Amino acid sequence: MRVVNIDDYEPLVGKKTIERIRKKASKFQGFHVVNINSTYYGGGVAELLSSMTLLMNGIGIKAGWRVMQGSPDYFSITKKMHNALQGDEINLTKRKMELYEEIVEENSIRNHLNHEMVIVHDPQPLSMIKHYKKYGPWVWRCHLDMSNPNRELWDYLMPIIEKYDAVVFSLQEYKKKLETPQLFFMPAINPFSIKNKEMSEWEIKERLEHYKIPTDLPLVVQVSRFDRWKDPEGVIEAFKIAQKKVKATLVLLGNVATDDPEGVDVYRSLLDNQSERIKILSVEDTALVNALQRHAAVVLQKSIREGFGLTVTEAMWKGTAVIGGNAGGIRYQIRDGENGFLVSSIEEAAQRIIQLINDKRLRKKLGRKAKESVRRQFLMTRLLEQYLDMFASFETKYRLK
Amino acid sequence: MRVVNIDDYEPLVGKKTIERIRKKASKFQGFHVVNINSTYYGGGVAELLSSMTLLMNGIGIKAGWRVMQGSPDYFSITKKMHNALQGDEINLTKRKMELYEEIVEENSIRNHLNHEMVIVHDPQPLSMIKHYKKYGPWVWRCHLDMSNPNRELWDYLMPIIEKYDAVVFSLQEYKKKLETPQLFFMPAINPFSIKNKEMSEWEIKERLEHYKIPTDLPLVVQVSRFDRWKDPEGVIEAFKIAQKKVKATLVLLGNVATDDPEGVDVYRSLLDNQSERIKILSVEDTALVNALQRHAAVVLQKSIREGFGLTVTEAMWKGTAVIGGNAGGIRYQIRDGENGFLVSSIEEAAQRIIQLINDKRLRKKLGRKAKESVRRQFLMTRLLEQYLDMFASFETKYRLK
Repeated sequence: MRVVNIDDYEPLVGKKTIERIRKKASKFQGFHVVNINSTYYGGGVAELLSSMTLLMNGIGIKAGWRVMQGSPDYFSITKKMHNALQGDEINLTKRKMELYEEIVEENSIRNHLNHEMVIVHDPQPLSMIKHYKKYGPWVWRCHLDMSNPNRELWDYLMPIIEKYDAVVFSLQEYKKKLETPQLFFMPAINPFSIKNKEMSEWEIKERLEHYKIPTDLPLVVQVSRFDRWKDPEGVIEAFKIAQKKVKATLVLLGNVATDDPEGVDVYRSLLDNQSERIKILSVEDTALVNALQRHAAVVLQKSIREGFGLTVTEAMWKGTAVIGGNAGGIRYQIRDGENGFLVSSIEEAAQRIIQLINDKRLRKKLGRKAKESVRRQFLMTRLLEQYLDMFASFETKYRLK
Repeated sequence: MRVVNIDDYEPLVGKKTIERIRKKASKFQGFHVVNINSTYYGGGVAELLSSMTLLMNGIGIKAGWRVMQGSPDYFSITKKMHNALQGDEINLTKRKMELYEEIVEENSIRNHLNHEMVIVHDPQPLSMIKHYKKYGPWVWRCHLDMSNPNRELWDYLMPIIEKYDAVVFSLQEYKKKLETPQLFFMPAINPFSIKNKEMSEWEIKERLEHYKIPTDLPLVVQVSRFDRWKDPEGVIEAFKIAQKKVKATLVLLGNVATDDPEGVDVYRSLLDNQSERIKILSVEDTALVNALQRHAAVVLQKSIREGFGLTVTEAMWKGTAVIGGNAGGIRYQIRDGENGFLVSSIEEAAQRIIQLINDKRLRKKLGRKAKESVRRQFLMTRLLEQYLDMFASFETKYRLK
């Protein structure tokens, strides 16, 4: 795989879009922006950054990417913060918050950030801003479902967030009472990555056979980190109800992100459900994700909380019929009954599985529309343009080149 | 834990040493050096970099640390390269080397290195140098046992290595035929880290109880990544022989580094040996490592290949009697019979375990000398001074400030 360039997108988004993006980028040649997040591998944020930084460098923006260095203790605390920002309870002990601040301080000592813009992703590195003199705007990019953050943690973080020059949430509805200007960027996918690129029938078959996934019956698939917000238990239950009416195989595929110590526990708790027709895999193989999303009759993303839900976009891009939980960003991707289905309960999920397994024409129709809506709204070029517009919006304030 | 400063070392290494280091550092205030390696957590290199970068920043050197971003495929290939540089066979297919070079290229696009010095650690990021204009010297710091690198891989890497301005190996005996100047720095430990700092009897007991490690009999301990070069099988065999003569409990503790996909397999293959008196733990808890090394009657590091063997230094620093494999850097730490024992076979290891378990006075004597030799030779300040001398050696060539 060679490095993807903006021109590769031309057949998908048109010449005009590419020209407009190049023009916007021309003002920012050599502009040095750095991203900081908490993991290099696993999870949607790492994927976004991996593609976006390469794409930006390809059009002349020096986009860097740093990752927090921390102990397992630190990642266990930041995972709790992550969950609490999505509404969970949290026990903010003094010891925990001290450890959090210490690791952030150590990272601040090691990272010499004098960039024209700093983009900090999610809560793990949030507090770094305390340790720097600003040379340009600092932006907090929060990828979480912020509809109902835990009050106690929010009160702790708010004064830190207000040190930033802008906050970017995934959805307008996450807007908060803040002094800081707020922007809203939905994520996007790279259609040329190993996870999303075209695959031949032969390649798909080879991947599925490699993992001994039976293809004699239609596949129902959920691809998701093992996280209870993604409701893997609900998926299994819905599938078991559907099994009374239709014949199919369920595949739950996940990986365990390096900054997610809870993932292993969730994975283990699911294993009892394994059977001939319920396969639960913890595998890091993005080509398998691609193959599953392409081969599936139905892709589920039955999340209860979801900042955005990149796996929904990924499956839709492959022309597959998707059933998504009626939560967070999923509702901005699926128009119920038009390019997929939204469900609010296990029972509803089960009914939609049955309906889709029984109706191939409906699957094709939803899939076609799904692919077209991703092409128009959710490819990386749209997000790149939003970033460029954001750079421009700071131009006067910070006298950027 | 607050950030460790050079002055914290004064009680250990003396005022004169600290003053000499500060004087050497005074020429390099604001000197911007960046380290690049392949993992932020797990393994000796990450530990060294974590402490050394903080220490350098504390004396006015802007020392940064970047990590390679890569897919599991990439890390699987670089692990094979790692093993091959230590003498293993390797199947250098075109596909593998292309993937290696692609990931390195992507990382080079994202990392804008115009630093006054770039220090690249181990083979994973080695090839990055191809993609940069140099603004200062590039140094390749190789932490591996380079006594007998695989010829085929060496031939592939040598032209890349010769692009560097210096190569640093851990031991003089790893010296290679190279155009590039070669330096030799043995690693060192941070005596204030969670892994090495003082612990009370109560804290030690609490950690061991937490993991249900029995303390009714003397402990024989090996702390090491699950890697066959560390010979965990040999440790178990030696212990089983010793068990016929003495009563003790064996604890093998490891973690699995994020860039080491083989570790999980080695770990699993050992589990059959578990018994009441043989405990095999895969835990990421550095305070447990500290507790085990302090409480142990005997610490083993029965490596067959070993670049240096930081765990030997760690245990010696705690005044514990250590039995080390007669390999690589271990021979530079242990003077056989004086501050520990060197062994060349399983049988020999078993005999030394028996001898040490039976002779508490010998253990104390070896431990006391062990601690003193670490204080003189293997604390982080010695390594820091070597780095400063290296910076100075480049001064004229590159007109550093």
